[in-house]
Amino acid sequence: MTDLTVGVDIGGSKIAAAVVDPAGRVLARADRTTPGRTTAPSVVEDTIVEAVTDVRAGHLVTAVGIGAAGFVDAGSTRVMFAPHLSWREEPLGERLEQRLGLPVTVDNDANAALWAEHRFGAASDADEVALITLGTGIGGALLIGGVVYRGHGGMAGEFGHTRVVPDGRPCECGRTGCWEQYCSGKALARFAREAGRDLVGPDLTAAANAGDIVAQGAFAEIGRWLGIGVANIVAGLDPAVIVVGGGVSAAGELLLNPARQALAGSLVGAEHRVIPPLRIAALGADAGMIGAADLARVGR
Amino acid sequence: MTDLTVGVDIGGSKIAAAVVDPAGRVLARADRTTPGRTTAPSVVEDTIVEAVTDVRAGHLVTAVGIGAAGFVDAGSTRVMFAPHLSWREEPLGERLEQRLGLPVTVDNDANAALWAEHRFGAASDADEVALITLGTGIGGALLIGGVVYRGHGGMAGEFGHTRVVPDGRPCECGRTGCWEQYCSGKALARFAREAGRDLVGPDLTAAANAGDIVAQGAFAEIGRWLGIGVANIVAGLDPAVIVVGGGVSAAGELLLNPARQALAGSLVGAEHRVIPPLRIAALGADAGMIGAADLARVGR
Repeated sequence: MTDLTVGVDIGGSKIAAAVVDPAGRVLARADRTTPGRTTAPSVVEDTIVEAVTDVRAGHLVTAVGIGAAGFVDAGSTRVMFAPHLSWREEPLGERLEQRLGLPVTVDNDANAALWAEHRFGAASDADEVALITLGTGIGGALLIGGVVYRGHGGMAGEFGHTRVVPDGRPCECGRTGCWEQYCSGKALARFAREAGRDLVGPDLTAAANAGDIVAQGAFAEIGRWLGIGVANIVAGLDPAVIVVGGGVSAAGELLLNPARQALAGSLVGAEHRVIPPLRIAALGADAGMIGAADLARVGR
Repeated sequence: MTDLTVGVDIGGSKIAAAVVDPAGRVLARADRTTPGRTTAPSVVEDTIVEAVTDVRAGHLVTAVGIGAAGFVDAGSTRVMFAPHLSWREEPLGERLEQRLGLPVTVDNDANAALWAEHRFGAASDADEVALITLGTGIGGALLIGGVVYRGHGGMAGEFGHTRVVPDGRPCECGRTGCWEQYCSGKALARFAREAGRDLVGPDLTAAANAGDIVAQGAFAEIGRWLGIGVANIVAGLDPAVIVVGGGVSAAGELLLNPARQALAGSLVGAEHRVIPPLRIAALGADAGMIGAADLARVGR
């Protein structure tokens, strides 16, 4: 009998749940809208329970894995802080275990996505991997020795808030000059707008693919910042592979070409080392859900 | 019978060798001047062999560990690039094994120093550690899960060449804005000189300790940059402890106080996490030698 688990991706706008098999295949799925930032934690919990109850009907499920956009503690049960939700030190794992009657693991959504890419996607050939997800902001995760690295307190991988410009642009985190202010969906739209093109997201990608030089310039600019930030990560961690995911990564080579150039130009000792390949994530928007399900199955 | 090994620290100015016991105690030592940058690799080898032969006389030594300022390959035998020496892809380990008739391991000097601090010094209570050494430039190393992390190609820990200022000060590495241009012995002397105090190294530390406000200001400035750079490392890796070593670290709290302030002000999620302690290294200039000897004993 196949060992099935449920993976749940809790993002800023959508809660997506799926029954996933050991090969990473999605057998069933259910989506819900994420309750707003001012909603009580119990309402978000209700929504997760509904989505899981809905999707598991008719499947023999042994565990549930959650991937949440936020800081998760080292024990993988407590969400310390989630910028898009009202959670503060929320014991999500325990609460959901009680309500669902199944073992529940909780992880950062980027950690879950990286695990999925390692098991079934763009990094299946490497044990030392950095994942950068470019959505509205930047998410990040690290694979070290073939396992997800969470650091001492569970908060490793927050590369989006490393400072790349002194006294630079103000960031939602309260500081200034954070990498995600220069390299993210939000930065992309801003670069385009400043150059006279008022488009966002997939429309910008379409315009760039259709030859719009302004849209292409905006991708070149965030791509350059991607390469600069990746060079810093490579100097510190020397990974085998860098995977770039998130909505913005749909732009593919429009983003990776300038990033590769900037990486080669910014990386210390580039002449004496193999520069790690930059690859687009293979599993798209489902990576977090599939990875969370697999982490619940195989353990952290 | 005690298992003794020799540790050798190959720095820009000095080659130091010591017989070290399993408790990290130095039983005998021998120092040599490092041959200049233009000297043939074989002359550097001769000098290492001399120092080891000298120091091991009268001791039953089972292995030799080298810590070298440079990029060492993942197999710990080959020095890919050493800025202060003429080595390029130098098979140092094999050559020394042939000449010394003992097993030889080769590692980056900062990796060796970190291992010593973990085994016998300031990080003996932690398995997730970042070491920053402030000498002329910055060296760095990572302990992950209680072992030295070298990355995929052996080059992890080169934090000194992460870029902290776009189009910033030119660096010896050929790029601009590298962290070590703002936080190192060289940066300290430059900040002091720009403010009218033409002192370097220990003289600057003495002046600051004696109340010289200009000298103290120079330490405050590199301390601030230390905190900013450490915040980036903590955002990415979430270590339990940060150890600060190298000659500049002799300034102690003169350096760490401003660094702690800048770290708390620069670290993402500082309100929702434990900020890792910054500690001065405990083993001083001998750390690399002791760590290299211990790595040769216990294996990598």
